[in-house]
Amino acid sequence: MLTFAIIGAGRIGSVHAATVAAHPDAELRLVCDPDESAATRLGASYGAQATRHAEDVYASEAEAVIIASPTHLHVDQITASVGSGKAVLCEKPIDLDVARVDRCIAALAGHEHRVMVGFNRRFDPTFAEIHTRVGAGEIGELEQLMIISRDPAPPPPAYLAASGGIFRDMTIHDFDMARFFLGDVVQVQAVGQVTDPAFARADDFDGAVTSLLGATGAVATIINSRHCATGYDQRLEAFGPSGTLEAVNRIATAVRSSTRATSTASGPYLHHFLERYADAYRLELSHFIDAISTGQAPSPTIHDGREALLLAEYAACSARATSEPTPIPR
Amino acid sequence: MLTFAIIGAGRIGSVHAATVAAHPDAELRLVCDPDESAATRLGASYGAQATRHAEDVYASEAEAVIIASPTHLHVDQITASVGSGKAVLCEKPIDLDVARVDRCIAALAGHEHRVMVGFNRRFDPTFAEIHTRVGAGEIGELEQLMIISRDPAPPPPAYLAASGGIFRDMTIHDFDMARFFLGDVVQVQAVGQVTDPAFARADDFDGAVTSLLGATGAVATIINSRHCATGYDQRLEAFGPSGTLEAVNRIATAVRSSTRATSTASGPYLHHFLERYADAYRLELSHFIDAISTGQAPSPTIHDGREALLLAEYAACSARATSEPTPIPR
Amino acid sequence: MLTFAIIGAGRIGSVHAATVAAHPDAELRLVCDPDESAATRLGASYGAQATRHAEDVYASEAEAVIIASPTHLHVDQITASVGSGKAVLCEKPIDLDVARVDRCIAALAGHEHRVMVGFNRRFDPTFAEIHTRVGAGEIGELEQLMIISRDPAPPPPAYLAASGGIFRDMTIHDFDMARFFLGDVVQVQAVGQVTDPAFARADDFDGAVTSLLGATGAVATIINSRHCATGYDQRLEAFGPSGTLEAVNRIATAVRSSTRATSTASGPYLHHFLERYADAYRLELSHFIDAISTGQAPSPTIHDGREALLLAEYAACSARATSEPTPIPR
Amino acid sequence: MLTFAIIGAGRIGSVHAATVAAHPDAELRLVCDPDESAATRLGASYGAQATRHAEDVYASEAEAVIIASPTHLHVDQITASVGSGKAVLCEKPIDLDVARVDRCIAALAGHEHRVMVGFNRRFDPTFAEIHTRVGAGEIGELEQLMIISRDPAPPPPAYLAASGGIFRDMTIHDFDMARFFLGDVVQVQAVGQVTDPAFARADDFDGAVTSLLGATGAVATIINSRHCATGYDQRLEAFGPSGTLEAVNRIATAVRSSTRATSTASGPYLHHFLERYADAYRLELSHFIDAISTGQAPSPTIHDGREALLLAEYAACSARATSEPTPIPR
Repeated sequence: MLTFAIIGAGRIGSVHAATVAAHPDAELRLVCDPDESAATRLGASYGAQATRHAEDVYASEAEAVIIASPTHLHVDQITASVGSGKAVLCEKPIDLDVARVDRCIAALAGHEHRVMVGFNRRFDPTFAEIHTRVGAGEIGELEQLMIISRDPAPPPPAYLAASGGIFRDMTIHDFDMARFFLGDVVQVQAVGQVTDPAFARADDFDGAVTSLLGATGAVATIINSRHCATGYDQRLEAFGPSGTLEAVNRIATAVRSSTRATSTASGPYLHHFLERYADAYRLELSHFIDAISTGQAPSPTIHDGREALLLAEYAACSARATSEPTPIPR
Repeated sequence: MLTFAIIGAGRIGSVHAATVAAHPDAELRLVCDPDESAATRLGASYGAQATRHAEDVYASEAEAVIIASPTHLHVDQITASVGSGKAVLCEKPIDLDVARVDRCIAALAGHEHRVMVGFNRRFDPTFAEIHTRVGAGEIGELEQLMIISRDPAPPPPAYLAASGGIFRDMTIHDFDMARFFLGDVVQVQAVGQVTDPAFARADDFDGAVTSLLGATGAVATIINSRHCATGYDQRLEAFGPSGTLEAVNRIATAVRSSTRATSTASGPYLHHFLERYADAYRLELSHFIDAISTGQAPSPTIHDGREALLLAEYAACSARATSEPTPIPR
Repeated sequence: MLTFAIIGAGRIGSVHAATVAAHPDAELRLVCDPDESAATRLGASYGAQATRHAEDVYASEAEAVIIASPTHLHVDQITASVGSGKAVLCEKPIDLDVARVDRCIAALAGHEHRVMVGFNRRFDPTFAEIHTRVGAGEIGELEQLMIISRDPAPPPPAYLAASGGIFRDMTIHDFDMARFFLGDVVQVQAVGQVTDPAFARADDFDGAVTSLLGATGAVATIINSRHCATGYDQRLEAFGPSGTLEAVNRIATAVRSSTRATSTASGPYLHHFLERYADAYRLELSHFIDAISTGQAPSPTIHDGREALLLAEYAACSARATSEPTPIPR
Repeated sequence: MLTFAIIGAGRIGSVHAATVAAHPDAELRLVCDPDESAATRLGASYGAQATRHAEDVYASEAEAVIIASPTHLHVDQITASVGSGKAVLCEKPIDLDVARVDRCIAALAGHEHRVMVGFNRRFDPTFAEIHTRVGAGEIGELEQLMIISRDPAPPPPAYLAASGGIFRDMTIHDFDMARFFLGDVVQVQAVGQVTDPAFARADDFDGAVTSLLGATGAVATIINSRHCATGYDQRLEAFGPSGTLEAVNRIATAVRSSTRATSTASGPYLHHFLERYADAYRLELSHFIDAISTGQAPSPTIHDGREALLLAEYAACSARATSEPTPIPR
């Protein structure tokens, strides 16, 4: 049995609280949020205490801390939690600044293995199955990876301002997925696009295509959009000399219809990340509990978090450099 | 909050116990099984009492009883439970003999509306969506319904002996599904087939095709097999003048592979009824709780249970009559 | 090089004329139709002579005759063509009356092997591939065959009157397909339905479900409708102990669309039999030419034509017997 | 009726010869190839004359010339053909050198509209349908285009040496397709990869990912490989604010199989370009004939050919620049 505190009683904190409560080997002890009533409400649902002070978390008997607070607080909370002997599962991204992450790693002083970063998609059963089958050699040596990752609708302008931009906020999941398959990346190219003026005002992009060259010679292509009429579009395709493995979108029910206009049509995708990755959140927590309980380092590590952030910086830089292209002579 | 007792601590009783325990408006109080250690084990998992005497159930304070015992006990347990003021959710079939069901209905003396029969497939989100869309007129007046229902592997010989035969044991779910869509059925034709000698020894069939003519003029075709190499094959197709609605099999993950031999291949179906109909068991219980809590009659009713059993008898009779066919002259 | 005459310059005769003209080993010499201008027009397109007298066909030097005339003329034209030394490819059905077909076979006096019946669907590449793979044992011994066969729209009332009814006119193709897979059939059950009053006036059905029990114990189910909003619905599924082989509908282009309402939708089916079975007409002719040129008997034979007609009679009889069902007692 | 000469009696010349012969409004008069026996053989199949001298083509009465000779001869043959009053359909690419194409255009002296470049994929019914539906606004303003284009197997080393490299030889079709959807392109990024040493020896790539930014802000991503275990992989996906239109691979037959390991599997893709684009060659020729016969300029034009070549040069340049990437610091 592993005892937990959660910092952050918002949407994603609530998901983690429910996941911990439902896990047979986990127990939720404490919920912390500056909005004390939110902390109290969430804690009460699962018989846990509540506090508005992060210090109470560090001083508590909880063995593990899930950090689901705003991004700029992550680094201090990681350092303090690990410093007080706790294992940490921290939501992505660790921070928006690689230098701050580096200082955090230094401050952990050899205890980085106690920190897991919440790249939950690695635990999605569909992606994980493909990863396993690629690893087993089913398609031969991986040559090309394609990731399509589109949100159903853009976040509100206020969110954008603090998001760090599309590459650090959204593509970061895809960078981690690319690294999950390719390992080290040696080159990044990106093209950004703006279709919605709100993104121009935030000096951000709402669409991007990023190419990554891996050290093995494999190439990953990531196609992003902040909107998608068809819903939460989450696909992946791994190509090798012996075949292809493809993750298609998941549909809510197994209904197909046919009409005068169409021979077959399936219903909409699972709506958004809470529905699409419900299993992934559950399996991510299981992995964390298993690893911590047996004294092993959970993965993805804080270094994986740093690498994804670094790729985001390179991609942002590349996209910005090419956003005022030299016209092709005609 | 509705309080429950469960009679039968076997596989399906355990499913119901877990479902009750997970439901926010339900509480499991008592588990009854002649195998007292099974009852105790299951009860302990959910903080419920255990007993080996059904009389303890009737005398208990539980407001509702789930009957998951062997079929031949259902009728007496329904009668006694309702007689002691409890609402009942009884697994299918009610009994293998229509005359006994008729006597049960008579004995309920006007309290039949307190009994729900566990045709859980009506609550499967995929089938339910198709039912709703047909009801909304999306394909026009239903003309043809096709049900394919195949088990992954045959049950053991001991099970067969007491099963009542393929029509009463297996097709009965499909008869209820046909009635769910067509309403009253006015004619039944069936062809039985035997591919496995174990079924011949049990004087049973392991494959069958049944045609049902509804009072509205719609026709349902049911194709059954006791084995299926591809897994638990559960499909349905509703055809009307404006289109078709089709329930395809549900796949465990959203992975598709491509190789030299195939352009695309999907993984296996969800394995068997506990996986395939997990949502259906949950939604079935929710409906029961809602209906009982608001003083309404849950559905499918004991009359639906009787009708499905009657269709099974007619089908068995038709299949038996034609199993020694008059050869077509040549 | 095989030389051809065609009797009948209507829609299906024109298809055969084009197919003969395009075949490298065939030459069209003569077209015969009581409507002389139609014969002349069709003949001219391919450099062939024209006549309104069938006797000119029998007296001609053509080695083979394709009979695409109205059904009631088939038997006499087969007899006369074979009698004058020609090989015959006759459109289905041979006749609407089994007794007349029997007299035709008797009159052929041992030359039946010179007659092929135009069950073109056996040559459809999709169905033929499934037949070959079933024959190669890919799914084990065939146990269940399902055929769905629906026309896009009903024929005009005038056509209905002379059609012989749904089983002899439409299902006959499916009876042949069932025999192609199952071999001899020992039992037939059918349910007919009427959704369109025009069919009631013609004492006919516009929907039917037919079950056939094969001598091997395999069962075939045929689901027919004279209308289908989604187009020409032509599917088949073969089920055996090791797997399933399925013919899905063919779509005109490989376009899939996704919108807010659907995750994926494919365009309409190939419209009707001329489009859907274009390859089959071509391959049917190739088989006929190969067989005749090498002195072998082409297949399907006149006996196959007779068997399919016999099944149609049994099915019509069964559907009629059950169209006033004894109500199920309640 | 348009009369044709064909220069080049190889594989692609033979395809054009058959297409011309089958077209009701076209007539093949002359076939030219330095290998006189090849020219004679091909000509004889369609009743056309043969020659080994291109001058005979220019001097002939043929109104149109199809150029299917080796690439380095295209420019001179275009100039001479147009100079002698003929319309030209020239296989892609026009040349491997943009400067030479520019000189060719200058030499045409205002008669460029008499030249069509054989980007046949624009005429593929699947891609053309998507282009039309995008143009009709079905998905809103196009934002992202994805093209996957993989050959079943690499060409022989001898071919590679003269091919001009993957971008000029293979991707050039995809560049034209991207321009077909996006219009003018303002920026090109490419990553090349080598998995097969034969390509390293030829100083070429056998895989590439190219990103194109269009003047409208839309982005196209092209994923290429010179090999593909699953066959000729030709897909396209157009994404806009209202939905997605997708070209999936075409399968030879409509068979799906299911086994213990898979729930559904489809057969292999149409094998290679002659099978996959058979319709496209036919429709390309129809467009050319229609345009020339009515005095209009056929399309894609020689300028489209030049643009695609220019994009190939930029892509090759970008891929080469990045093939020795500065390692990302860690």
